[in-house]
Amino acid sequence: MNLIVDIGNTLIKTAVIDGDRIMDQRRTANATDYFIDRLLSDYPSIDKAIVASTGPGGERVCGMLDGRVGYLLHFSPDTAVPLENGYGSPQTLGADRLASAVGAYALYGRRNMLIVDYGTAITFDVIADGVFLGGNISLGLGSRLRALHEYTAKLPLCEPTDEVRLFGTTTESAIEQGAMSGIVYETEGYIAALSEKYEDLCIIFTGGDAKYFVKRIKNTIFANCDLTVCGLNIILEYNAAKISGK
Amino acid sequence: MNLIVDIGNTLIKTAVIDGDRIMDQRRTANATDYFIDRLLSDYPSIDKAIVASTGPGGERVCGMLDGRVGYLLHFSPDTAVPLENGYGSPQTLGADRLASAVGAYALYGRRNMLIVDYGTAITFDVIADGVFLGGNISLGLGSRLRALHEYTAKLPLCEPTDEVRLFGTTTESAIEQGAMSGIVYETEGYIAALSEKYEDLCIIFTGGDAKYFVKRIKNTIFANCDLTVCGLNIILEYNAAKISGK
Repeated sequence: MNLIVDIGNTLIKTAVIDGDRIMDQRRTANATDYFIDRLLSDYPSIDKAIVASTGPGGERVCGMLDGRVGYLLHFSPDTAVPLENGYGSPQTLGADRLASAVGAYALYGRRNMLIVDYGTAITFDVIADGVFLGGNISLGLGSRLRALHEYTAKLPLCEPTDEVRLFGTTTESAIEQGAMSGIVYETEGYIAALSEKYEDLCIIFTGGDAKYFVKRIKNTIFANCDLTVCGLNIILEYNAAKISGK
Repeated sequence: MNLIVDIGNTLIKTAVIDGDRIMDQRRTANATDYFIDRLLSDYPSIDKAIVASTGPGGERVCGMLDGRVGYLLHFSPDTAVPLENGYGSPQTLGADRLASAVGAYALYGRRNMLIVDYGTAITFDVIADGVFLGGNISLGLGSRLRALHEYTAKLPLCEPTDEVRLFGTTTESAIEQGAMSGIVYETEGYIAALSEKYEDLCIIFTGGDAKYFVKRIKNTIFANCDLTVCGLNIILEYNAAKISGK
């Protein structure tokens, strides 16, 4: 069994994977000794673990796991991955973005692809001819709505909507439609520009807000599985097999 | 001579207009009695004034001007304007958006038009068949860059850029290119959707950040004059002429 630890900006996510099956998923704000002890005692068959962090905290969790699993991998920019990394500055690339790309590439058929991750930020990442190229970073849906309220004196805090109209007719609906349509047009812009450049482009949406946009944008695939967890598991297996000479 | 007072969220802007010529423009954080006294004594020929406010403060400035100009107009949702207002909830429409539309419609030839105002927020407003329809509200360029930094743990604060690339290759350039391209694609999305619906659509860009986008988006007009001031002056003349029976 494999243990995946993904340390994000605010939450630490863990997954226990047996073969292709996710057996257990947990989230915590703080990975205490107790939290890790509990995981390992709940799943004594865990023999491999990978720890990835976009922020600090990776070292600490690795220290807790050291000597307690057969193979421990601290995912860093130097870790080997089964996807060529053509990003200009791999040292500054978020571990989660590369892991998601590895996951998507394995799950959705090794094609040219655009992976859009709709979270606090939106990332537009490209894999072309088997090479991860990285991509742009933009502000997420919830953050846009929040900033419109917090950075202006009079605009209200609005919520995402499923309603589709060209224009709102009140301040609230103008903000709601503006936020949704803005991200739809932005995504369509990338799809058009990239489809011209890369043949047979496959478009994968992931992240918490993907549900709003997969309905509105044609020919997209909604990856409701956790691409990052899946990619980290693939990277773990890939490196463990190298070590064991498989 | 006409005095225009436009009370925004953070600044109060004044303009003194003689015929078609802007004689004087001032900005202040706080319209004190001294500030108004100074303006009126610098331009004793001011005989008409209009006060518009998106926030509070309009009443106070009107009180200062009352009895000191021949004709004083406090611009409100009920004020007559030389453009039919088809906005669903005129009471909640910002005074500046309607005034800018009046200005653009008079200056750029009474055609179907999309007016994009690139400020703290971005507004996309439409005039079709002589009727102001309003439009959507989205987050502005500077606010997107600021929120990406403030709402995440690790992303740096980046600046607008004139460089045009499909993708950035570092975190900084991915954010810069992401912010610029996002707004370009968003604007192009509106232009495409509206051009299909409204014949011979004229596209006017205004606001502090318009300079970045007029270069990248085809067939646009950069209104470097102050559309709001111009529109408010037209509204002032329109109402003064009604009163005097001209």
